[in-house]
Amino acid sequence: MSEEGGPVPVPIDSGLLSPVRVGTPVEAATSDQAYLQAMLDAEAALARAQAGLGTLPASAAAVITAAARADNLDLLALARAARETANPVVGLVAAFTRVVAATDETAAEYVHRGSTSQDVLDTGTMLVAQRALKLIRGDLHRAAEALGHLAQTHRDTPAAARTLTLHAVPTTFGLKAAGWRQLVLDSADRLDKVAEGGLPVSLGGAAGTLAGYLTYAAIDGDVTDTGDYLDRLTEAYAAQTGLARPSLPWHALRTPLHDLGAALAHTAAALGKIAVDVQVLTRTEVGEATEPAVAGRGASSAMPHKRNPVLATLIRSAALQVPALAGALTQCLTTEDERSGGAWHAEWLLLREALRLAGGAAYTAAELATGLAVNPPRMRANLDLTGSQIVSERIAAVLAPRLGKAVAKQLLTLASATADREGRSLGEVLEQLPEIQGTFNEGELAGLLDPTRYTGAAGPLVDRALKRRGTPPL
Amino acid sequence: MSEEGGPVPVPIDSGLLSPVRVGTPVEAATSDQAYLQAMLDAEAALARAQAGLGTLPASAAAVITAAARADNLDLLALARAARETANPVVGLVAAFTRVVAATDETAAEYVHRGSTSQDVLDTGTMLVAQRALKLIRGDLHRAAEALGHLAQTHRDTPAAARTLTLHAVPTTFGLKAAGWRQLVLDSADRLDKVAEGGLPVSLGGAAGTLAGYLTYAAIDGDVTDTGDYLDRLTEAYAAQTGLARPSLPWHALRTPLHDLGAALAHTAAALGKIAVDVQVLTRTEVGEATEPAVAGRGASSAMPHKRNPVLATLIRSAALQVPALAGALTQCLTTEDERSGGAWHAEWLLLREALRLAGGAAYTAAELATGLAVNPPRMRANLDLTGSQIVSERIAAVLAPRLGKAVAKQLLTLASATADREGRSLGEVLEQLPEIQGTFNEGELAGLLDPTRYTGAAGPLVDRALKRRGTPPL
Amino acid sequence: MSEEGGPVPVPIDSGLLSPVRVGTPVEAATSDQAYLQAMLDAEAALARAQAGLGTLPASAAAVITAAARADNLDLLALARAARETANPVVGLVAAFTRVVAATDETAAEYVHRGSTSQDVLDTGTMLVAQRALKLIRGDLHRAAEALGHLAQTHRDTPAAARTLTLHAVPTTFGLKAAGWRQLVLDSADRLDKVAEGGLPVSLGGAAGTLAGYLTYAAIDGDVTDTGDYLDRLTEAYAAQTGLARPSLPWHALRTPLHDLGAALAHTAAALGKIAVDVQVLTRTEVGEATEPAVAGRGASSAMPHKRNPVLATLIRSAALQVPALAGALTQCLTTEDERSGGAWHAEWLLLREALRLAGGAAYTAAELATGLAVNPPRMRANLDLTGSQIVSERIAAVLAPRLGKAVAKQLLTLASATADREGRSLGEVLEQLPEIQGTFNEGELAGLLDPTRYTGAAGPLVDRALKRRGTPPL
Amino acid sequence: MSEEGGPVPVPIDSGLLSPVRVGTPVEAATSDQAYLQAMLDAEAALARAQAGLGTLPASAAAVITAAARADNLDLLALARAARETANPVVGLVAAFTRVVAATDETAAEYVHRGSTSQDVLDTGTMLVAQRALKLIRGDLHRAAEALGHLAQTHRDTPAAARTLTLHAVPTTFGLKAAGWRQLVLDSADRLDKVAEGGLPVSLGGAAGTLAGYLTYAAIDGDVTDTGDYLDRLTEAYAAQTGLARPSLPWHALRTPLHDLGAALAHTAAALGKIAVDVQVLTRTEVGEATEPAVAGRGASSAMPHKRNPVLATLIRSAALQVPALAGALTQCLTTEDERSGGAWHAEWLLLREALRLAGGAAYTAAELATGLAVNPPRMRANLDLTGSQIVSERIAAVLAPRLGKAVAKQLLTLASATADREGRSLGEVLEQLPEIQGTFNEGELAGLLDPTRYTGAAGPLVDRALKRRGTPPL
Repeated sequence: MSEEGGPVPVPIDSGLLSPVRVGTPVEAATSDQAYLQAMLDAEAALARAQAGLGTLPASAAAVITAAARADNLDLLALARAARETANPVVGLVAAFTRVVAATDETAAEYVHRGSTSQDVLDTGTMLVAQRALKLIRGDLHRAAEALGHLAQTHRDTPAAARTLTLHAVPTTFGLKAAGWRQLVLDSADRLDKVAEGGLPVSLGGAAGTLAGYLTYAAIDGDVTDTGDYLDRLTEAYAAQTGLARPSLPWHALRTPLHDLGAALAHTAAALGKIAVDVQVLTRTEVGEATEPAVAGRGASSAMPHKRNPVLATLIRSAALQVPALAGALTQCLTTEDERSGGAWHAEWLLLREALRLAGGAAYTAAELATGLAVNPPRMRANLDLTGSQIVSERIAAVLAPRLGKAVAKQLLTLASATADREGRSLGEVLEQLPEIQGTFNEGELAGLLDPTRYTGAAGPLVDRALKRRGTPPL
Repeated sequence: MSEEGGPVPVPIDSGLLSPVRVGTPVEAATSDQAYLQAMLDAEAALARAQAGLGTLPASAAAVITAAARADNLDLLALARAARETANPVVGLVAAFTRVVAATDETAAEYVHRGSTSQDVLDTGTMLVAQRALKLIRGDLHRAAEALGHLAQTHRDTPAAARTLTLHAVPTTFGLKAAGWRQLVLDSADRLDKVAEGGLPVSLGGAAGTLAGYLTYAAIDGDVTDTGDYLDRLTEAYAAQTGLARPSLPWHALRTPLHDLGAALAHTAAALGKIAVDVQVLTRTEVGEATEPAVAGRGASSAMPHKRNPVLATLIRSAALQVPALAGALTQCLTTEDERSGGAWHAEWLLLREALRLAGGAAYTAAELATGLAVNPPRMRANLDLTGSQIVSERIAAVLAPRLGKAVAKQLLTLASATADREGRSLGEVLEQLPEIQGTFNEGELAGLLDPTRYTGAAGPLVDRALKRRGTPPL
Repeated sequence: MSEEGGPVPVPIDSGLLSPVRVGTPVEAATSDQAYLQAMLDAEAALARAQAGLGTLPASAAAVITAAARADNLDLLALARAARETANPVVGLVAAFTRVVAATDETAAEYVHRGSTSQDVLDTGTMLVAQRALKLIRGDLHRAAEALGHLAQTHRDTPAAARTLTLHAVPTTFGLKAAGWRQLVLDSADRLDKVAEGGLPVSLGGAAGTLAGYLTYAAIDGDVTDTGDYLDRLTEAYAAQTGLARPSLPWHALRTPLHDLGAALAHTAAALGKIAVDVQVLTRTEVGEATEPAVAGRGASSAMPHKRNPVLATLIRSAALQVPALAGALTQCLTTEDERSGGAWHAEWLLLREALRLAGGAAYTAAELATGLAVNPPRMRANLDLTGSQIVSERIAAVLAPRLGKAVAKQLLTLASATADREGRSLGEVLEQLPEIQGTFNEGELAGLLDPTRYTGAAGPLVDRALKRRGTPPL
Repeated sequence: MSEEGGPVPVPIDSGLLSPVRVGTPVEAATSDQAYLQAMLDAEAALARAQAGLGTLPASAAAVITAAARADNLDLLALARAARETANPVVGLVAAFTRVVAATDETAAEYVHRGSTSQDVLDTGTMLVAQRALKLIRGDLHRAAEALGHLAQTHRDTPAAARTLTLHAVPTTFGLKAAGWRQLVLDSADRLDKVAEGGLPVSLGGAAGTLAGYLTYAAIDGDVTDTGDYLDRLTEAYAAQTGLARPSLPWHALRTPLHDLGAALAHTAAALGKIAVDVQVLTRTEVGEATEPAVAGRGASSAMPHKRNPVLATLIRSAALQVPALAGALTQCLTTEDERSGGAWHAEWLLLREALRLAGGAAYTAAELATGLAVNPPRMRANLDLTGSQIVSERIAAVLAPRLGKAVAKQLLTLASATADREGRSLGEVLEQLPEIQGTFNEGELAGLLDPTRYTGAAGPLVDRALKRRGTPPL
């Protein structure tokens, strides 16, 4: 790129093409720098675990821990070196060993003792994921709280329910908001299930037998009981990282990646449902809701009057991507041998992107839910747009015992068509239908035709939905 | 198609293009016929639930239940009619009402009382899914049992572990089989989690407020307490179907579809890992395992000598499809309004295909695991292919305290390259290296170079893995 | 499945779960029966090709051709047998040989002479694809014609353009329809490119060397020049099938599958754009377009007044599926060896589903485009919804030279916000703004504020777009 | 993130998680910096185009062009600002206007004259894509050249063809390499088709009518003929950018994105086929090929002896990702209105990632193809592994006219099974079979059993494949 021989520009990923996550906490938590730090955290935790079991000098573990700071290493150089070995850990270990050696040559001998690239990269990845999940859960919690408030406030605010784009029957905005909250809680539950089983440390050595660790343990610590040391080392490593202990090394058993991908895909796609609903409500013709007003927010480069629903737009941009990424991540489970040449390597970007897109969507959704402005008068006005056809189901039901269900339904179908054709309300048409003369008492039909009185169990449903408490994040 | 005016051929889906599931129980459980029956089961359960609450005559519920048999309806005609309404339920209700009316005109009035297409289709879909999951779980259990047996039997059978296609270090075949079993149990757990929370009935009416059900309940049963009836009807419907009670109508909150898709994708992809591993072991050059021998199985149309690993092939064909289908299914969560015009409709085929492909893969995996023939002598022979380079990690570790870790590793790298270049074993090269003259006792190096003595914790890992009991399917 | 011991029900694929294609010509063209016939066509064409080169008796070719009718074989039995060999051809060859032998035992010796399963299945698949593409192209042509008519008719019908759900600037409905047509022509071009390069015959034999064909040619026809016979046999086979001659056997070079998948994904997704646009226009609040009115079409099982936009719904259901299927199809290019154990087998269902979903969408789109009812008065009325804010860009441009671009834009932003807040039109607010007093001549502002006079180049763009002629299908 | 109050770290995307493209030219060509520059190039080209038509002062265009350098802007600040408007262009225009104003306030008035965010972002994206495609095409050309050389050199090097993991029949390595080259040329053709139709400039203004451009043209240049100016401006803009002129503004007609995605998915997946083939050949047990030897390349952090096939690994990691990204990109065609709130925004990352992963794969494939070391003796040795069963097809064909095809095939199946069971060669078994005593002349059977004499048309196929010339990149 630098044809004139000048310095190669640093490839900053500024997030320019990914505004849904740019500048959010989850972006920083999943940066290359964050991955590098997490891998160093993994190296340091391993040394401390080994030291705790007496197979590595405590002093070496201390030096290694102190040196394990990402800014001690040249991130860009490590990344470039990764092409030679198809992963960044080989170079990282060499560079980190030099850093440690600069302080303490003996300690440097104990860096990455008995370990392998995949243990470090996978453990580092789980640390990054754990940190990112915590942020995402916090944002989902904020979103659920705000949506719960909306649902409570608008428990009885009548609004049109829409199916296949058309007014169907009345509902309340509170029920819609309660549904959104339900999805957010569903996502939070799924993320919690992933986190609570515990994201696992990776500790298998070169191919899952821990043979390297055991060999050094025999040399360094006179360890002879293989099974016992296996248990104790895994336990100690899990404790030092704050991750979970897996029942088997999972270098080739990639369930944790699938679980993360699936939960993140649910998160992004569920938040996407809120986004597309908000977009419908925001439409110029609908006008039932508006995104939080912030100066300059939603501006267009061409049209001065516009205040675009940018938060919904950002969330939806993530919803359109994460499920595809997660699908590809799950495909990486189909991985040959004790370590695939490619399937493992394909996971890295897919997971990181899923984390930061879903995380960006959660952050944005919290903002959207907190500030969403709702317009009940407009909802009420829209309910009248069909001239009461929106309650045709109700009239048909009331007439069914009198006329037979099929006849009643057909009659309403015809009456609705007549009303459309003649530009009249359903009530006007019905009043003149000979078939139902005398069927209704004075005022009965008018009451039946009132859309605000046909919201069914919307209110009680909101009450029941709000009884489901979201688990606050840890 | 029938240009000559003859009868239009019935579009039999014979499974010709999907041998992984052709003729398996899960194929029948997910056929169009099975869906039709499940939707009729939903209609009948609804009637019984309403009858139990006194809002529908018990006699009508009995007639409706008796009539609810798929062979009373013309499947093909219903399917064709579905184009007019974008779903098959509108036509189904009309046709089923006629069937009921033929027996009892009054009962016919109570068919689909207060209901809507989506309640019937979604409840029917959950019934199909529940029935299919039961089959799949049974097959996963069979597979896990067989794999557990393999792991136990070959706990100490040494074999080469392979990473990035190359011999890495020794392992045991038992550990490999234990890993496969682990994945199968992971899939079973994920399917159980979906089933145990309970696949939910759908009961929301036209747009999730249950207004139609409530209107009829007021007419038919003098019901006035909306919230109470909502609870009781949902409970009764769940009981009648054997499905779970959702906390909110989920017509537009599609978490159950995501959960099913994600668990099925894990199943297919995880079984795919077993398949690709078996394929590697089956390779002519490797020869460590063979698929169960059945007369005629694995024949080629061209090559008489071949006995193709067809079971692994079939499983892998499913593994390559289901994650993509599940990703698309999750995208359908991003669904606008109280019912999307399209996102709901896209789910149907995606889920059915995911169920029967994953189910076919599970059925096939049980067969593969049960009959897999393992060749320990060949494993042993292959372990010698690198002339002990497969234990280079071990030698480097042993030398590390004597020479320094970096020097030891570099020395082994050079020795390995020399061995390759000169076609000698690593032992021969090492014995002549001046750097390590006198380092080893008599016979020590030979012992270290023996790959069967460097299987690390493979045995204890198998023991620990087998302690994880698979939950037998219900 | 038939626990009571009764006959196993035939698994009819009635299309119940896929209304977008149910009963359409492309469904029949891609049925299992159609695949079976196409594979028999491939066998017959091969025999005729060999006969034409003198390496197979002409009489045998005639008998084979006469026998090659799908109804001579038991489709269901073949499908079930496919599990044993992972493909249906091994069984098909055996069964077909028996059919031929029943007429002529000698001819039976020449069935599948020198061939292999993949040649037959792949050639059959290309025949099915070619037949389906022809149907799809016809429907796209019909759709483009109808859309061209809409574009012409409404070249100057003003309507609101919407961006990020909000009214942006005026446009014309004709320009929107011209854009839809453009996409349909794009799809047609992409399908044509696939068809015109030619869907290739598959002729490679057991592993792409044609060794089997050559061996028999030497025996049966005394052929000695390998290269010459290779050319002549491929040419003759292509001629007999009506497919193209590939430059190399493509058993493991799966570009044709990718090309088909990509073009079909474009088709479905592009038609999906029309569908979602129609859905917006159909919304109760927007009301600018209505799907073709057909008695009973669009009925709801619950709501008598509804006439759902079912065609758009069906099309969108396909648009949500085909790109994911095509992505998985492309992944199958990454296929190991001379024939993968799994990647080849995964293609079959993915392609068939892509063909019939995209084909169903095209069929439905032709129907939608032909009958779409447009409501210009409603378009005109909607244009006024923002009280002329829809032309804020224009006013800002006109003021820019007078006030500076930034000041002008900011002024319009503030004026629009004021208009919103005070419920006034933009014109009213502007007239009272001190900053622009005296800026406009009498009547100038009113003219500038008229949305019907700010449609830019919409008309000329329609003219230019219509100059692009769609290639009529063959 | 910086809890201690220190400076927020710059989120460098070092490529740490994506070694397939780290440090390659295509990475730099698709960096955020490169996108920013391309968008500025678009702004400058627009100004020059307008100046050329006399609707913008030439001096302003010159100032704007001179100022349009990415390092004049704060990339990170622009990226962060993009959250407020859901795209980076609103902020870019403001910042760039300030840069221009610092030199020439009048010129600043003419920045982004009549334009809209999407025109700038889409044109910028096409410039980035065009630049990246050029690099990718160069690498594909290099790869094809090298593969052509391999095919030529090994035209007659016999090797085992493998199907479903087993030795099938003999082939030549040259034919395998010719197939790889074929795929590379297929990819190059598909990329060329995208490039040659021309990646289009985006010029539609706020919603595709060019109304803003026309308004300014009327003010600045007294333009009255709408259609004529439309044509001339589009032409001039295309000329200034070096991009193509589209037949309609494509702000909502996203065919170019689909085309790019599909061609890039083919590229990655096709190169993936080469990678998985190389991985098979590299397996310890197979040993027929080795990746180019470079010091340190392929090192493992644990196992000193390993020289991992890292290039194939990297390529495959891309092959597993790009098709999923491309599928999601195609789904974005289903985009509502004149600009979707989300579908447009989802494209950005998907395309960039597809470009740089496919580009990285191409770069890596060129390296792999150029240096691949082939081991003909090992190929020859492997051909003998089945004791001549690899030619069972041939023997069956030769016996067919004597015994009948079915009998011959069955006999070979049995003989092969006997050979396996008894550990003998197929020849030994056949020689003792009573059924064929006297069938062969002296030495005939031995000749038939020689795998090197059964490579069919492999040689001539290589010749024909090499006649297809790859188009060199521009």
